[in-house]
Amino acid sequence: MTRQIQLYYKNALSDIVTSEHGIRIDELTALSVRITEITADMDRQRKAGKLPYRDLPYQDKIVSNVKALTHKLAGKFDNLVVLGIGGSALGNIALQGALSRPTYNLQSERPGPRLFVLDNVDPVQLADILDLLADQLDRTLFNVISKSGQTSETASQFLIVCQLLREKLGQDKLADHIVATTDAKSGTLRGIVEKQRLTSLLVPDGVGGRFSVLSDVGLFSAAMCGIDIESLMAGARDMDERVKTGALTKNPAALYAVLQYLFYLKGKKLCVMMPYSYQLKDLADWFRQLWAESLGKSHDLSGQLVNVGPTPIKALGATDQHSQVQLYREGPNDKVFTFLAVENFDRDVTIGSAEGIPELKYLEKQKMSRLINSEKLGTEYALLQSQRPCLTIHFPRVSPYTVGQFIYLFEVATSYMGQLLNINTYDQPAVELGKHATFALMGDQNYRDLQRKIQPISQLDDSFLI
Amino acid sequence: MTRQIQLYYKNALSDIVTSEHGIRIDELTALSVRITEITADMDRQRKAGKLPYRDLPYQDKIVSNVKALTHKLAGKFDNLVVLGIGGSALGNIALQGALSRPTYNLQSERPGPRLFVLDNVDPVQLADILDLLADQLDRTLFNVISKSGQTSETASQFLIVCQLLREKLGQDKLADHIVATTDAKSGTLRGIVEKQRLTSLLVPDGVGGRFSVLSDVGLFSAAMCGIDIESLMAGARDMDERVKTGALTKNPAALYAVLQYLFYLKGKKLCVMMPYSYQLKDLADWFRQLWAESLGKSHDLSGQLVNVGPTPIKALGATDQHSQVQLYREGPNDKVFTFLAVENFDRDVTIGSAEGIPELKYLEKQKMSRLINSEKLGTEYALLQSQRPCLTIHFPRVSPYTVGQFIYLFEVATSYMGQLLNINTYDQPAVELGKHATFALMGDQNYRDLQRKIQPISQLDDSFLI
Repeated sequence: MTRQIQLYYKNALSDIVTSEHGIRIDELTALSVRITEITADMDRQRKAGKLPYRDLPYQDKIVSNVKALTHKLAGKFDNLVVLGIGGSALGNIALQGALSRPTYNLQSERPGPRLFVLDNVDPVQLADILDLLADQLDRTLFNVISKSGQTSETASQFLIVCQLLREKLGQDKLADHIVATTDAKSGTLRGIVEKQRLTSLLVPDGVGGRFSVLSDVGLFSAAMCGIDIESLMAGARDMDERVKTGALTKNPAALYAVLQYLFYLKGKKLCVMMPYSYQLKDLADWFRQLWAESLGKSHDLSGQLVNVGPTPIKALGATDQHSQVQLYREGPNDKVFTFLAVENFDRDVTIGSAEGIPELKYLEKQKMSRLINSEKLGTEYALLQSQRPCLTIHFPRVSPYTVGQFIYLFEVATSYMGQLLNINTYDQPAVELGKHATFALMGDQNYRDLQRKIQPISQLDDSFLI
Repeated sequence: MTRQIQLYYKNALSDIVTSEHGIRIDELTALSVRITEITADMDRQRKAGKLPYRDLPYQDKIVSNVKALTHKLAGKFDNLVVLGIGGSALGNIALQGALSRPTYNLQSERPGPRLFVLDNVDPVQLADILDLLADQLDRTLFNVISKSGQTSETASQFLIVCQLLREKLGQDKLADHIVATTDAKSGTLRGIVEKQRLTSLLVPDGVGGRFSVLSDVGLFSAAMCGIDIESLMAGARDMDERVKTGALTKNPAALYAVLQYLFYLKGKKLCVMMPYSYQLKDLADWFRQLWAESLGKSHDLSGQLVNVGPTPIKALGATDQHSQVQLYREGPNDKVFTFLAVENFDRDVTIGSAEGIPELKYLEKQKMSRLINSEKLGTEYALLQSQRPCLTIHFPRVSPYTVGQFIYLFEVATSYMGQLLNINTYDQPAVELGKHATFALMGDQNYRDLQRKIQPISQLDDSFLI
C-alpha cells in the first residue's frame, strides 16, 4: 500500500458523466504543452526567489526553532490561545482538527495545552472565552499572529489581552505569556516585540497568509499540541517531488488544476470539497480561503477585466448528504465535487447487535469505517447517475505525513490554476477597501474622506426596512 | 426600539447596485399579485392541514410535554448526546449555538448537561466521544432522533449505544438512558420504543426534517440545556402574524423570497448567508439545508425538467473577510449576500490601552461590538462599490424570541420561494438513491441488483489514479 495521497479522476471524465458534463481526454492532452511551460515558468520563479512558499518544507531552521521554543515552554501552560484571522488562523485550525483527537480540549489528559483559536471579533464569544480563562491566566499562553500587527481584528484582541495580563499578572509578566509571530524586521507588532522584549516567531518573507501554514505561523500551535511537525514537512517535501514534473498526467497538482480549469470554462464554477472524515473537515475551510482569495480576481495579467474565480464550497460527508445532496443531484449541474476519502481510519467502532430488528440486520457487527466509506461511494454513484463530475483525493490514512502532502498539493494546484487563469494568484487587492472602511467607521481620523462616503449607507432608510 | 427582527433590502436594489445587478422596484411590483395569490394558496393549504409546520408554534402540548420530560430528568445527567443527522441535528446545533454560551461544554457550571450532537458516522470522532463518556455512562442520556429509525447513520449509532449501555450498565438500565424522538405510530424506532419501553417524543406528522426544529425534534435538547423554548415559540408566532399578509411589501418572508427569486432569474444563483455574530453561525448551516433541500429540484410541478435551485453558502463575519471577500468583490457577480447583524450584543469587551502604538490609537477604549458592526458595514460598503447586492436581517438582540422569529421567517420564505419556482418544496427524492447504494454496499441482500450496478465504480481504475 502506498503511503502517498492520490488523486482519482476517472469519474470526472466524459466517458462517465457525458461529454457535456465531463472532461474529454483530448481536452486534457491539449493543455499538456501549456502545463509543461507553466511548470518551467514556476521553476524559474522559484529559483529567482519569487515562490518562497515552495521552499518552506526544506528550511530545517523553521522546525528546529519551533521545536526549541515548544521544548522551552513545555509543561508551563494549560491553555494556548491563538490570536489571528484568515491565513493566521485557518492553518492552525486545520492542523489541530486533523491531527489532534476530536475531543482534545475536553480531555483531562492531553499532549499539550487546550487550544483556542480566536479568529473573530465577536464580543460574546470573546467575553465568554476570557471568562473561562480568567482564573487560569497564569497557565495561559497567547500566540498573536500578524505580519503587520495592524489587522484590526487581531490588534484589538491583542490590546485586550495585554491589558488583561497587565491587570491580573502585572506588566513584568507580559513577556512570559505572549509569543508574537510577525515580520522579522518591520511593522507595528515587530515594534511591540522589541519594546516589550516579547518572544517572537517569524511570518516568512514573501509568503502570503494563505500559503503560510508550513511556517512558524501554523507550526507553533501544532507543535505545542504534540503534533509531529517533522512528518508534516516530510510529507510536503515528498509531494514537492511529485509536483515538480512538467508531465501533466504525472503531476497531481497540475492535473487537478487543469481539470478544475476545464470545468470552469464549461460553466461549472462551484468547487465543492467534501471530506468523508470529521478530521479533514477543517482542511476544507483552509482550502476555501486558498482557492477563493488566490483565484477570485477582477483583472487578468494583461489588465483585462475578467471577474474570474471559482467559488469553493465546504461540505462534509456523510452529514451533508442529509442537507445538500438533493441540490447537488437535481439542481443546476454547475458544481465539481472533490471528495476526501480515508482508507484506514486510526480508530474504529463495531456496530452492535440488531437482534429483533430485521430492518437493521445489514448493519450488525459491521465497522463504522465501512459504513462511512460506503456512504461516500453510494453518494458518488448517485451523483454520477446525475452526470455530476467527481474527483477524489485518497488518503491511505490521516497522519501528519499525509496532511503535509495534502497542503502542499493544494498550494501548488492553486499556483497552476492561477497561471491557467492568467491572474495574479498571490495578491488580494479587494480586501483593502473593507479594511479602510472599518478604520473610517471606527473613527480613525486618517480616513475622514471615506467616512463621508460611507455616511449614506450607514444610516438605515426606514422605507426599505420591514 | 423594536423587538422584531427586520429585513433591510435597499442595498439589493438597482438604485444602489445598478439595474444590471440590482432589483428594480417595478420588478418587485410586478410580482405582488402573484404573492397575493400564493399567500391565499398557502392559507388554503394550511387550513387543509397540508402545511403542518406552520402550526407547530401554536401547539402548547409540544412545549408542555417537552418541559414535563426535562423537569423529570433535571439533575440526573451530565451529558446529553443527540443521535441524529440532517434535520434531526441541524436545528439542535443551531439553537445551542445561538442560545447557550459559546464555551458551554467547557464550563464547570451550566444550566444543563453538556451537549454532543453526533450527526456523522466518522469512526474516529465516534470512538473518541465514546471514550470521553466511558466512565460517565451512568450520567449520560442519549436522545435518538429519527422518524423511521432506518436512517443508516442514526441507526448504526443507536445500535452501538444500546450495546454499550447493555454491557456497561445492564439491559434493565437501557430505558433510563434513552429518549427516542420518532413517529407516533409506525416505523422501526417506534417498534423498538414499544418493545423496550423507552421514553419517547414525537416527530410530528407531515413535517419534513428540515422544518421540524420547532417540535420535539429541536426543542428537547434545547430545553435540557436551559434554553427558554416558550420564548422561542412566541417569537415564531409573532413572526407568523407578520408573514400571513398577502401584501408583498409588508411580508418579510414573501419579500425575501421574491428578491431571491428575481436574483435567481438574473443569474445570481449563489445565496451567501453571512452572520456577523459567532452565535448565529449555526443558523446559517440550518438555513443551508432548508434552502438547498427544499429548492434544489430537477422537475417543476408541471413535470418539466428544470434542474433548478439556488446554492446556499455559509460564511462568517468578520472571519471570512479574510478568506472569501476577495472573491466576493472581484469574482463573478453571481452571488446575493444576506448578512445577519446584531444591534445589541449580550456581552461586550472594551479594547485596552494602545499607549505608545499610534497606529492602533483608533481602537483604544472602543467596544468590540462597535468593531464587529463596523466591519459588517465596511464590508457591505465595499461589496456595494463592486455592485454586489446585499440584504440584511437585523436582530435587535440574539434571544430565544428573535431566534424563533428567524426560524419561522426563513421557513415561510422557503415556502414562498418554492411556489415561485413552481416546484415541490417538501420532498427530497434525489436522496434515496445514495441511501440505497449505501445499503447495497453494506451487503444488504435486498439491494443485490444495485450492488451489481455499483460494482464498476467501486473498483478504482489504476490508470486514472495519480
